[in-house]
Parts: sequence; structure tokens; C-alpha cells
Amino acid sequence: MKGAVLYGPRDIRYVEREGPTIIEPTDAIIRLPATCICGSDLWPYRGIDPVTQPTPMGHEYVGIVEEVGSAVKNIKPGQFVVGSFFASDNTCPICQAGYQSRCVRAQVMTSIGTQAPLARIPLADGTLVATPDLPSDDLIPSLLATSDVLGTAWFAADAAHVQPGATVAVVGDGAVGLLGVLAAKQMGAERIIAMSRHAPRQQLAREFGATDIVSERGDEGVARIKDLTDGLGAHSVIEAVGTQESMLQAIRATRPGGYVGYVGVSHGVQLPGEELFFAEVHLFGGPAPVRRFLPHLINLVCNRTIDPGKVFDLTLPLAQVAEGYRAMDERRAIKVLLRP
Amino acid sequence: MKGAVLYGPRDIRYVEREGPTIIEPTDAIIRLPATCICGSDLWPYRGIDPVTQPTPMGHEYVGIVEEVGSAVKNIKPGQFVVGSFFASDNTCPICQAGYQSRCVRAQVMTSIGTQAPLARIPLADGTLVATPDLPSDDLIPSLLATSDVLGTAWFAADAAHVQPGATVAVVGDGAVGLLGVLAAKQMGAERIIAMSRHAPRQQLAREFGATDIVSERGDEGVARIKDLTDGLGAHSVIEAVGTQESMLQAIRATRPGGYVGYVGVSHGVQLPGEELFFAEVHLFGGPAPVRRFLPHLINLVCNRTIDPGKVFDLTLPLAQVAEGYRAMDERRAIKVLLRP
Repeated sequence: MKGAVLYGPRDIRYVEREGPTIIEPTDAIIRLPATCICGSDLWPYRGIDPVTQPTPMGHEYVGIVEEVGSAVKNIKPGQFVVGSFFASDNTCPICQAGYQSRCVRAQVMTSIGTQAPLARIPLADGTLVATPDLPSDDLIPSLLATSDVLGTAWFAADAAHVQPGATVAVVGDGAVGLLGVLAAKQMGAERIIAMSRHAPRQQLAREFGATDIVSERGDEGVARIKDLTDGLGAHSVIEAVGTQESMLQAIRATRPGGYVGYVGVSHGVQLPGEELFFAEVHLFGGPAPVRRFLPHLINLVCNRTIDPGKVFDLTLPLAQVAEGYRAMDERRAIKVLLRP
Repeated sequence: MKGAVLYGPRDIRYVEREGPTIIEPTDAIIRLPATCICGSDLWPYRGIDPVTQPTPMGHEYVGIVEEVGSAVKNIKPGQFVVGSFFASDNTCPICQAGYQSRCVRAQVMTSIGTQAPLARIPLADGTLVATPDLPSDDLIPSLLATSDVLGTAWFAADAAHVQPGATVAVVGDGAVGLLGVLAAKQMGAERIIAMSRHAPRQQLAREFGATDIVSERGDEGVARIKDLTDGLGAHSVIEAVGTQESMLQAIRATRPGGYVGYVGVSHGVQLPGEELFFAEVHLFGGPAPVRRFLPHLINLVCNRTIDPGKVFDLTLPLAQVAEGYRAMDERRAIKVLLRP
């Protein structure tokens, strides 16, 4: 089959690669009606994460099960399934506590590459969640969003302890940040402050439930959040970037006793201990255990309560994956959907 | 009156200083039957925190109210009261959320100095909690412990989300670490691992409820915690030191999804963002909002459920405060009680 392979900085190609087969008896093979490009794919694309050999790309996926290994009990061929970027057994003590992205048997899907028509999913019974019925085609973008960006944003809002009536600030206006707004809204936040300086993203943030937009960044952005919250800071802050500036912005925008949920993959961050100590904010984040939230999110999508697929503002054939990366790299697109 | 004043590194003197008076109408003056030396007093004593002018020392206190300002409504002369190292109004939104150490009107008691027979307590109605009756003299050390070390340890255990049945590790065997063991025990932890290499402290840890002692530190200490927890790490870790080594030890000893409660005053700590991201542990701490816990802790002491005063293993006249600092600096004493 053909799939997307990264050869070096900004050198992504749609090329022939080996098709997936059952390797472990717990594997499944799925056929993807759509896949997509993640903001985190841009780290290696931009050369910030080094690429030492040709690397199949992609870790977001939905699809129809084509084949399962002999040890797979619950997932059946023909089902429509959603999984996330970490395969997990969903039975170990870490999974049972709800942290499937750190399952003792976790396997990261970036090592497999789902920007392709077919993919092998390890630990299928633990990893995959089947939809109640075969979804109509118009739901596929939103279901695909649950696989990573929505699941990650939901985890960030959960980690940021968003409560009904709360004031929530969101640092980052990529797909995860925008869906953090949606998650905060669903969790009952009263005031949602989106930090964004891009008009189309501000508009989508408002559609998802943002009540305020702050275009300033850094200390000025923090000052604006303080202005909007009686000088105290937000109850909950979602961090969806991963840089030193965004982390400090998130910590400083949070009131004492408040919560920062951070999901931007950390790059070059060093948190000053003394500032953190006196900030007295709860800090939690990491690779999202999307699996925990998938049943609920799939339900919200299938009953059309939410429409997270709106973050896809560009759809391309998978063969044009390189243009998709360029569009996201240049911030011409929020998120790119790829159709095989 | 005479009180303890720090003149420079390791130069603490018992000298004449101005006695307290009501300055604000919300103040109270208390007479202290005992005071004590805190591990955090050693930072300036050792010159790690610079001392630029003669500084009255001490921030832990209990006492009988002698006088109150005209705006004090609830606290009455003659009451026995306990307060903590931050005066707080207990009414602002931050206090109401339980983070009184970050009250919008917070005043730090280190600026007043309670290693003296009398002290001025700002915001008396918010800061002070009266005991139901005048306590018998033998309860005074334990009540004094609630003022800081127990209150801080309790906060750490709360921040570390200690749950019934959990495995808890405690980094640091000073008074706060040891009382972290006591707090974890009271909160129902099943297994409590004290990290200590000092026999008398190990013994007190066991008295307070430690089930295991780990004498290794750093990576070796972490490996021992992993050995004791099926390779996963502790559910909850209490950090009560404040150094880079102790913070990393705490983070690395915690299982994914687990909780670190840190109360060691941070000195020279820089947390690597990438490690923190992939550790996926909850991190919370800072100056303890002891006020939140005081009513409960006073009750536990007065009904003799707990005896945190055991951490005082040396009692001296206040006039010998310099010997008290030396004993703690040289780790000959865990914590020193001073009687005026």
C-alpha cells in the first residue's frame, strides 16, 4: 500500500510502504475511511524532533475492522472502531486507574503510522472502542477528532478540573486548544477565555463556546486574564502548546489553588521550582489517556451533541499529504483531513 | 521584651526587641506558652536565604489572647488560639476555596517573628482558631505542631491525594516528612514508605505509621520504591525537602496518574518539562494553607487521637535559642521546642 513517510525536515512523501499484517495475536487490522495530520506531527516535520530514518507518519485513526488476531475476543471484523495514539491493554492497574496512555504494555501508534489506508492496531481489545452502529459518513471527521485532538483536549479540561460555573482560560489556538474550549463548555464552564490572535480561529473558538478572546500573549496576556477575573486568575487553564512561554503563561494565568491541565508536547521547557511553589497551582498533564474518554466522546458525537470535526478546515486526498503538512505548517489550515 | 533575632549566617541572638502592639484594628496580641524552630528557619540561618538586616525569627505559635483590636469580632482575650505562618482574612475567594496561604490579604508571619513571649497576629478573626477549652499543658507541643509542621504535612498528604488503601512514599525525614507519615496514616494509607537514613527518625516514622523504610536516595531510592510497588511507583508521594534531588526523587517514585504533594520550600529547583510531561503525575504544593486544616487538626490533638508533638525531641528555654538552631542545623534534634 501507499502511505505518508517522512524522510527529513519538510520532506514528506506519499510512497509505497509495507502493508500491515497481524503480528501479535492481540492485533487487529483496520481500513481507514479517513485519517489526518496532528499538530504534533509538525515537530518532526519541522526538524525540531530529529528524523534519523524514513518514518511512517500519523497516529490518529478510525476505521472498519478487517481482520483480528486469534487472541482478540471483543473486537470483530466489520465493526467501526475508534482508537487513540497509545495502544493499551485497558486491564493493568495504570489503565484501570484511567491512565491508559501509560499502560504497562503501552505501544505508541506513531511507531506504526496511520496516514495510510490500512493500519495494524496492537492490543485491539484494550485499544479500540466500537461505535454502536456503522456511522454515517458525515460523522467520520468528528469521530476521527475523538481519536486524538478531542480526546486530548477533553483530558486537558479534566486535568484542569473544569467545573460548572468556572472561569477557564485556554492557551493555544490549534485544534486541541479550540477543542479545549468545546470540552470546557460541555463541562459547564461559565466563562471561557480563548487566547488567540488569528481571526478564523477566534471565530471557531466562539462557535465552540468561548465567551472572551484575549489576543495578547506572555505577561500581557496574563495581565488581561487577571483583569477579567478580579485580579485572581482563572480557576482552570488549559495549556495546548508545549513551549516555555505557553507553560509559564498558563501557570501565571491560574489563580492560587487553581488547576493547569497541560497537553502541549513539552519542548525545551524548564519550570522554575520557586515560582511554581509560590504560584500554588495544581499542575497535571502529559500524553492524554484518550481511551478513558472515548466511549463518552463517541456517544456525544453519534448523538450529535458536539461537532468537533469542525476543526478540519481542509480536506485533501491522502496522496496530497505533503500539501496538507505545508498548509498546517504555514498555519493556513487548522487541521487537515486526508481521504484515501 | 526579648526575642530571637538573626543577625547573619549562624548568628542568632536572644536580644531585646520591641514588644508587639495593636497596629491594625484587626490585630490580636497573644502570649506564647511555647514556640519552636522550623526546618525552614535553617535556610536563612545557613545563609542560603540572604539576611540583609537583623531579623526577628519564628512563624509558629499558639497562645493566650491578651488583647484584640477594635475590629476583631470573634477572637476574645483569654482564649487559647492556634494560627499559622500566613495571616489570612479567611473570607476572600482564595481563602474560601481553601488556599488561605495565598489570601489576597495574606501577611507572612516571618515578618513578625514568633520566637518571643508575645506576638502580634494580623487579621485575627481570619487567622486564629480557638481551642474549645484551655488545653492542658501536655497538649501544647502537639497544638504548636499543628501551627506549621503538622498543618504543612497534612496539606502535603492532601495535595498528594492520599486515599484509603493507598501506597504512600515520603521523601524527607524532617518534622514535616515524619508528620506526613502520620497524616497519611490518618487518611487511611495502607502502606507508608518513609525515606530516611537516620535511625531515630526511622523509629519515629514507624511510630507514626510507616510500614517500610527506604534508606537509599536518588535513583537508588526510586528503584527501591518501584521494587516495593510491582514496578509501578507509589500512588502518592509527599515531598518535604525542597531540593532538585528530592523533587525528582518524588516525581520518579510516583506511578503514572499518581500524585506528588510538595511542601519543601523550593531552592534551586528546575523541573525538566519533558520528563514531567511523560511522567504524567499530578503535581501540587506550595506554602500550606494550614488554616484550612486547623479546626480538624486541633480536634484530633485535643481528643488525643494523634500526638504530633513527638517531633519535638529537644526542649530548651527560649533564652537558649542559639543552641536550638545549632542542634537542628547539625541534625542532633528533629525539632526544638522553646519555652519562654
